[in-house]
Amino acid sequence: MTGVARMLAEIAHIGADPRGGYARPGYGDADRELREWFVGHARARGLDVHRDRNGIVWAWWHPPGSGGPAVVTGSHLDSVPGGGAYDGPLGVASALAAVDVMRARGDTPARPIAVGVFPEEEGSRFGLACLGSRLVSGAVSPERALALTDREGDTFADALRRDGLDPRHVGRDDEMLDAIGCFVELHVEQGRGLIDLGQPVAIGASILGHGRWRVTVDGQGNHAGTTLMGDRRDPMVAAARAVLEIRDIARGIPDARATVGRIEPVPGGTNVIASRVSFWIDARHPDDVVTAALIASVRDAVARVAAAEGCTATLQEESLSPTVDFDRGLRDRMRAALPDAPELGTGAGHDAGVLAERIPTAMLFVRNPTGISHSPEELVEDSDADKGAVALADALVAVAGDRTDASV
Amino acid sequence: MTGVARMLAEIAHIGADPRGGYARPGYGDADRELREWFVGHARARGLDVHRDRNGIVWAWWHPPGSGGPAVVTGSHLDSVPGGGAYDGPLGVASALAAVDVMRARGDTPARPIAVGVFPEEEGSRFGLACLGSRLVSGAVSPERALALTDREGDTFADALRRDGLDPRHVGRDDEMLDAIGCFVELHVEQGRGLIDLGQPVAIGASILGHGRWRVTVDGQGNHAGTTLMGDRRDPMVAAARAVLEIRDIARGIPDARATVGRIEPVPGGTNVIASRVSFWIDARHPDDVVTAALIASVRDAVARVAAAEGCTATLQEESLSPTVDFDRGLRDRMRAALPDAPELGTGAGHDAGVLAERIPTAMLFVRNPTGISHSPEELVEDSDADKGAVALADALVAVAGDRTDASV
Repeated sequence: MTGVARMLAEIAHIGADPRGGYARPGYGDADRELREWFVGHARARGLDVHRDRNGIVWAWWHPPGSGGPAVVTGSHLDSVPGGGAYDGPLGVASALAAVDVMRARGDTPARPIAVGVFPEEEGSRFGLACLGSRLVSGAVSPERALALTDREGDTFADALRRDGLDPRHVGRDDEMLDAIGCFVELHVEQGRGLIDLGQPVAIGASILGHGRWRVTVDGQGNHAGTTLMGDRRDPMVAAARAVLEIRDIARGIPDARATVGRIEPVPGGTNVIASRVSFWIDARHPDDVVTAALIASVRDAVARVAAAEGCTATLQEESLSPTVDFDRGLRDRMRAALPDAPELGTGAGHDAGVLAERIPTAMLFVRNPTGISHSPEELVEDSDADKGAVALADALVAVAGDRTDASV
Repeated sequence: MTGVARMLAEIAHIGADPRGGYARPGYGDADRELREWFVGHARARGLDVHRDRNGIVWAWWHPPGSGGPAVVTGSHLDSVPGGGAYDGPLGVASALAAVDVMRARGDTPARPIAVGVFPEEEGSRFGLACLGSRLVSGAVSPERALALTDREGDTFADALRRDGLDPRHVGRDDEMLDAIGCFVELHVEQGRGLIDLGQPVAIGASILGHGRWRVTVDGQGNHAGTTLMGDRRDPMVAAARAVLEIRDIARGIPDARATVGRIEPVPGGTNVIASRVSFWIDARHPDDVVTAALIASVRDAVARVAAAEGCTATLQEESLSPTVDFDRGLRDRMRAALPDAPELGTGAGHDAGVLAERIPTAMLFVRNPTGISHSPEELVEDSDADKGAVALADALVAVAGDRTDASV
């Protein structure tokens, strides 16, 4: 028993989504409560806790005699709306448990170990995933980030101020990146790879390239009762046609995924023909050139179906992350420490993917017996959570090197 | 100059929708502010104002020597989201102006005149249009009405309490209906009839039968990146197919209209395949049998496309109003008073349609030079507003009878 399941049980009541699962958007009340839970656990372990200027919370363990850049683990605590209990929190709880395991075993890692909690990883609130890791690594400019707005119209700058951070101080932080050295993130698997392989833990191989695009279709708002069918320029009809075109385009490209999960008609009244419909596309493919071609096809299709309905459409990129192969050196050290763990790629984005632009990163995945994620049905068995935390401890020691091991 | 345009200018700042036009849902802050504006104008004219137990505000004028049941005019002050400035408020301001016109001319109507302001006519907040007139007339039971919820999950009972009304006292009010006798509602035209006829004012002939249905499509929520296209049961794709089927069904039936203006995916995250998508259908046809057949076709189509995507769907009626022909006697009297006014039907629902079940009702329509309604582009020229108010005064005297006219 590593205590991972017990720690997760402590936060099971926080940020419940009334429609099922969790809704824990970044910088909100649930997010703050979860952060306090983490800080409490870190302080109870005697870790040095601080929150940096980008809102990332760090908890440091300096084993006696350790030195040099830290080996960082951790994950995030925010969730998508209707999300599961493990996506994010499993990595944070496992990081704390891994520290416990290393200490209990008397491990002597040669480098400091730190646990990082990254804000707004899902991008559920401000639309840009991995916001904390993008800021610290410089992958997004402070200007662009601060101007992002949530559904209530609050800017990211407003949210930071309300959360006790100074918007003037966010942005790339090379000093921090130099201090942390490398990052190993543990995460619930979001597919069926480990089910099929019959293994509890995998070493991450790569992250599928992915991006988000916003489509806005403009038509003519009018009265639903008085406007004849032939007189309409209805953006909802155009958007419906576009949703089907997008699905068909993705189905025609091997390994591609394209999803419309969010759609917002304006004004959104039952007895009103919408004047505008916005919807968002999440698209992913291992080959970034194919992703670009997919989006080009979508752009053409959206323009065509909009025109056919007397509407106009625009497609705008909100984020784009190329395919990431995790650091070969880290993976080799982890493979040596975890000889039974297979290597698996993932279709999901992670802070480890964003940080890979600046520092060596790696991941561990823990088996999800439903294969379902971003849903209340996401699951990790307690025994697999324990195996994951022990594997993480092994991986961190392997990456940090053992101070007493002359071979390192 | 009847003052209609000036009165509307006084409320032009209230309840502006940031996306354009107005958002004035029933029982909210904007609605309350508009009601106070009306009460102020009514009191300034020496009218007796009271708010009844269903939230309808009444302002009474008892001309000397008048008696018997009143002739009521008026309309509503709430709006659809993104609505125009005239749908509702034009009828209220014109009613006040018509009282001014009658008094200035020294008219001597033989019956009391009252101005009624009906709450939640659009049904934008609680999903049931004409909520005030449905309650007073008994067209909806208090039990059903009180359990209605808005998008924030507040019940209608909560909203009433917050607005100073006692939920235990809402419901059918025969005493009130007996006192008001008949109802003549002036409204902006929501189509192009008067543009084509070159006339400023029309007498209402009928209201198209109409209803609202809610469709709920259930699929499997999952991660947008890790779930292969072939493994999905995506309710957004099923909903998109349903939107197109519904449009095609309506296009295949002469004079039918069907609209999807509101759609809500759950959980609605960009990187999440939705687990459920709800959308609403507004459907209308002059022949209620045809409307029923249209909805039967929609039900079949929705079930078929949902099954084809591995989803399930339910279709639920939220309201249904049969086609209404306005009272023949009232129309004849109004035609005699307004010999140039054509008779026009409308595709829009109104309180006058609901009240027609219990008392004689009639309507006047004022020209809308854009032909567009439920949109910021809705328009009435000031000179047409004046003609409308004078026509309303003429119509009210014609309906009430002139006390000094021996022929009545």
